[in-house]
Amino acid sequence: MPNDEQSEDWPAQVQRELRRFAEARDWPRYHTPRNLLLALVGEVGELAELYQWDPPTPPPPDRVAEEVADVLIYALRFADVAGVDVTKAVAEKIARNEHRFPPLNDRTP
Amino acid sequence: MPNDEQSEDWPAQVQRELRRFAEARDWPRYHTPRNLLLALVGEVGELAELYQWDPPTPPPPDRVAEEVADVLIYALRFADVAGVDVTKAVAEKIARNEHRFPPLNDRTP
Amino acid sequence: MPNDEQSEDWPAQVQRELRRFAEARDWPRYHTPRNLLLALVGEVGELAELYQWDPPTPPPPDRVAEEVADVLIYALRFADVAGVDVTKAVAEKIARNEHRFPPLNDRTP
Amino acid sequence: MPNDEQSEDWPAQVQRELRRFAEARDWPRYHTPRNLLLALVGEVGELAELYQWDPPTPPPPDRVAEEVADVLIYALRFADVAGVDVTKAVAEKIARNEHRFPPLNDRTP
Repeated sequence: MPNDEQSEDWPAQVQRELRRFAEARDWPRYHTPRNLLLALVGEVGELAELYQWDPPTPPPPDRVAEEVADVLIYALRFADVAGVDVTKAVAEKIARNEHRFPPLNDRTP
Repeated sequence: MPNDEQSEDWPAQVQRELRRFAEARDWPRYHTPRNLLLALVGEVGELAELYQWDPPTPPPPDRVAEEVADVLIYALRFADVAGVDVTKAVAEKIARNEHRFPPLNDRTP
Repeated sequence: MPNDEQSEDWPAQVQRELRRFAEARDWPRYHTPRNLLLALVGEVGELAELYQWDPPTPPPPDRVAEEVADVLIYALRFADVAGVDVTKAVAEKIARNEHRFPPLNDRTP
Repeated sequence: MPNDEQSEDWPAQVQRELRRFAEARDWPRYHTPRNLLLALVGEVGELAELYQWDPPTPPPPDRVAEEVADVLIYALRFADVAGVDVTKAVAEKIARNEHRFPPLNDRTP
């Protein structure tokens, strides 16, 4: 018998975890699209702070990893609340970009 | 025999597609962490524009889906170039949040 | 007799113009701090798009000027609605930074 | 005899202070347009964090004032380095908006 949780793709699985996390804290009422969008802006700002002075060596990997995780967590939670099918949206956008920006070997005579 | 591409998780699969996409256009030289970060800022800005006047009805679903896809695409491409293991970083951050914010039923007597 | 409008500093003068502009269009109801903040995010995103691929020559000056103007307009309108005294806040922050970051000649023996 | 510093408008005056501040710390080499743009993104992110959970009462006024000051400081410093004439750019943008969005009394019969 199929196990729905096991057959889920990664975005759906993370979104389910984030939903449970929010529900266990009575937070879904705070998780509106606009609130999550502002939270995403805050996390992108924290990632920007690591790179703003153009450091000669990359910022500490664990700091970068944590800020990237925060960006992805809020983007995925936003998508869940806003009703966006993430795997479909990303696949469609990549397909559209393939069409908009032909690869080099298609442009040469 | 295992098929590496099939056993990949979703972020790794999307990152591989984006890498191929960039290479077919000779774009990897433009895909530095800072450039991709500024591109991410641009996409978050486009998502914000859909919500900025607090519309009484949600913005058009296909527009929201496209902007969310752009945010995720640049976040995943950034993570690839910056050497972040996305599934690990997200799992660790969720685990850390579980610890930092105890659920309600753990706080009641 | 003093002319209040003439003796105003630049931020107060721009804020007065933006207030009149909004009122003439029945827009003050849309100009909440959160809405203006999301609009500011959108404008910062547009400025970022001009610089995201690290162009070898600067972006077109008129495009840069227009996006900077949009950023300042929303920041000043936000400040007005949120009740921030801009000239005081900026002067205080610069004074605080002077203290936090001593200049080089104060650090040398 | 005219005093150039006294006759300066507020943006030029603040930009002059910020320039002196940077020079006294040997920081102009870090103040490229892209670096300042990423710093601006960081400050907008900090402002967003104050509003992200849609607080029932406004955030602490001194926190809001400080973050708004940081946004304006980086926007003005960016404009100086990028060669944007701020008072001209803002005046032109407001004039353009007057034209693009006719006021209500001009639209009624």
